[in-house]
Amino acid sequence: MNDTTRPIISAARHAERLERAVAATTAHGLDAMLVGVGPDLRYLTGYQAMPLERLTMLVISPRGPAIVVPRLERAAAEAGVQGDVEILTFDEGADPYGLVVQRIGNAHAGIASIAVSDTLWASHLLGIQGAIGRDARFRSADIGVASTVLRDLRMVKDADEIELLRLAAHAADRVVAQIASGRLVGRTEADVSQEVRDRLLAEGHEQAEFAIVGSGPNSASPHHEASERVIEAGEPIVLDIGGHLSGYGSDITRTLWVTGGDATKGPDDGFRHLFGVLHEAQAAATRAVGPGVPCEAVDAAARRPIDAAGYGDAFFHRTGHGIGLEGHEDPYIIAGNAEPLQVGMAFSVEPGIYLVGRYGARIEDIVVCGPDGPITLNEAPRELYVVDG
Amino acid sequence: MNDTTRPIISAARHAERLERAVAATTAHGLDAMLVGVGPDLRYLTGYQAMPLERLTMLVISPRGPAIVVPRLERAAAEAGVQGDVEILTFDEGADPYGLVVQRIGNAHAGIASIAVSDTLWASHLLGIQGAIGRDARFRSADIGVASTVLRDLRMVKDADEIELLRLAAHAADRVVAQIASGRLVGRTEADVSQEVRDRLLAEGHEQAEFAIVGSGPNSASPHHEASERVIEAGEPIVLDIGGHLSGYGSDITRTLWVTGGDATKGPDDGFRHLFGVLHEAQAAATRAVGPGVPCEAVDAAARRPIDAAGYGDAFFHRTGHGIGLEGHEDPYIIAGNAEPLQVGMAFSVEPGIYLVGRYGARIEDIVVCGPDGPITLNEAPRELYVVDG
Repeated sequence: MNDTTRPIISAARHAERLERAVAATTAHGLDAMLVGVGPDLRYLTGYQAMPLERLTMLVISPRGPAIVVPRLERAAAEAGVQGDVEILTFDEGADPYGLVVQRIGNAHAGIASIAVSDTLWASHLLGIQGAIGRDARFRSADIGVASTVLRDLRMVKDADEIELLRLAAHAADRVVAQIASGRLVGRTEADVSQEVRDRLLAEGHEQAEFAIVGSGPNSASPHHEASERVIEAGEPIVLDIGGHLSGYGSDITRTLWVTGGDATKGPDDGFRHLFGVLHEAQAAATRAVGPGVPCEAVDAAARRPIDAAGYGDAFFHRTGHGIGLEGHEDPYIIAGNAEPLQVGMAFSVEPGIYLVGRYGARIEDIVVCGPDGPITLNEAPRELYVVDG
Repeated sequence: MNDTTRPIISAARHAERLERAVAATTAHGLDAMLVGVGPDLRYLTGYQAMPLERLTMLVISPRGPAIVVPRLERAAAEAGVQGDVEILTFDEGADPYGLVVQRIGNAHAGIASIAVSDTLWASHLLGIQGAIGRDARFRSADIGVASTVLRDLRMVKDADEIELLRLAAHAADRVVAQIASGRLVGRTEADVSQEVRDRLLAEGHEQAEFAIVGSGPNSASPHHEASERVIEAGEPIVLDIGGHLSGYGSDITRTLWVTGGDATKGPDDGFRHLFGVLHEAQAAATRAVGPGVPCEAVDAAARRPIDAAGYGDAFFHRTGHGIGLEGHEDPYIIAGNAEPLQVGMAFSVEPGIYLVGRYGARIEDIVVCGPDGPITLNEAPRELYVVDG
């Protein structure tokens, strides 16, 4: 993996995002948006830090952006935060929440109207709520999640972000090919799962977050991770793997059938039929992608062939989720979500059919909404992988 | 790394922890303790899952423990949750927070008195707060963090946990030795940091969470991570590295001085003096560890020689933090914490001296409070590593 070919998000881009976030905070009528360590902070400023018990918090308010950091993180914040952000520090053992609340304006007659980043720790949110309660300017607080403000920015990926998602997708594609061509029969799911994680890292991921290996009846449990079950010849394996590469998520699912080299142990007719329906459903949902198409229409396009074949009850999760700096983010491809797709939105398309107790299958790609329709980032074949294993 | 030699936490141990947590919830006068995905959930039930937008939440109440999971996680929860826990599911798109709040009793005259896990996402806490507001039984909610309840359980490690911490510590020790004996001069900090991460994984860590490489003036910034700065002969490097191995944290700091093989580029007298004071301080703090000793006394023991040498202002962070399933957890070794150490508590002892703009040093071990005094888990030499680099 040649790092020098990877696009990076420039300081100018971060400054621009921060400006848009300030404008959006005002447009949503908020006194402040409070962003803890995590994907929102990385998106807005480029700053990456570990979420810890010591508070690090970007405060976006009409007074301009400021970041509250522990004194011993000042140098790290100075080096890591891009854009015009004032740095405020607190000493070891001091209360940082009062410092944050001081930056919150009071435009709502005594009600602190704020948004906090969705993944902020509860300990920090309770700290903020406590400090608001102690501040004589406020009678109460109206607190929502920052995704309602930031989703419009983060959902639409720019060209560099799409390129990063593509690199992550291709790395995951290679791992699928490696696993499908290797030995599987006689190994535990957990052992194969560990191999997947090792290979994701070897292919350039900085984090291998999940490596679902569901064999035999476990293939019918969508979020089964991996167990000590030994893979046998004559059964399917659902392989759903991913992580983060240069900050951007990968997520691919392919379904294998292992024969152990025994031609009599190929997929039965029932499974072939099920997989055929699923393959059609996944392709139909992908084809449905285009600017202006509601998210729920993509979900419905996946469901139609599955319902028609009588498997409706066996597809009991949403069709997909957005992906970017987080593995799951807006937009969600689910019934009831009328959000129209925009050019640059990136999300998974991953219908599944699960005959609980018996077997199941899923196919998943990361798809970007292009100006003329879908752009599928994964390139691994979508057919059933019938392999010796 | 031979996995079969690693201790595992048994189902019986998880069941016992859960029972103690139920008792502690009652003893703290709480209607319920709400535990999201993360270290608390793993500690109490063994269940590991990714924190996601779909709620997974253990509800500990006088009605007995229950876990709320998405329908599609039922099989994973059945396989992963140890102990006698009722599983409640919700369908895709349904509101899980009402389901949680239904399990909360009302023993406090209309006030929901609950604790939530410290690392629960704000989105979920706001969901819970919203559902309490819609529940006619409650006028208000008194919400605190679960660590106030669970800290007494989690702080004191059992023999298996200490063994896991020791395995993690020894893996980190080996990485320090590998880095100290390799080439450093002429490479960027970021490049060395990447090597550290790769080696932590190669030595059995499932996560390499931090790899601080602070060279030259960056050695005086305690939480500097790593930059594009090129390491030169004749300067110190603070190496502070760690992650998780079998779920338990590693965290070690050693200070190097690279000469580039040039005998004239060894440490200057000022640095040798500074390091000598630091070495004495770290040893004194470690010696101070014993049952009944207040955490603040260990902090004071580190500070005394540093203050006496006139470096007091140059040591501006706490002496240490607890470690276990989280890299930072109770107890904190800090002024003002009168908590007496108990046998089985595990924490870092990591004083540092930082001459900002010039150079700095830190030494860190993981130390367990034993019945007769400190048990130091790290075995790498604590002296200044004067190396060619």
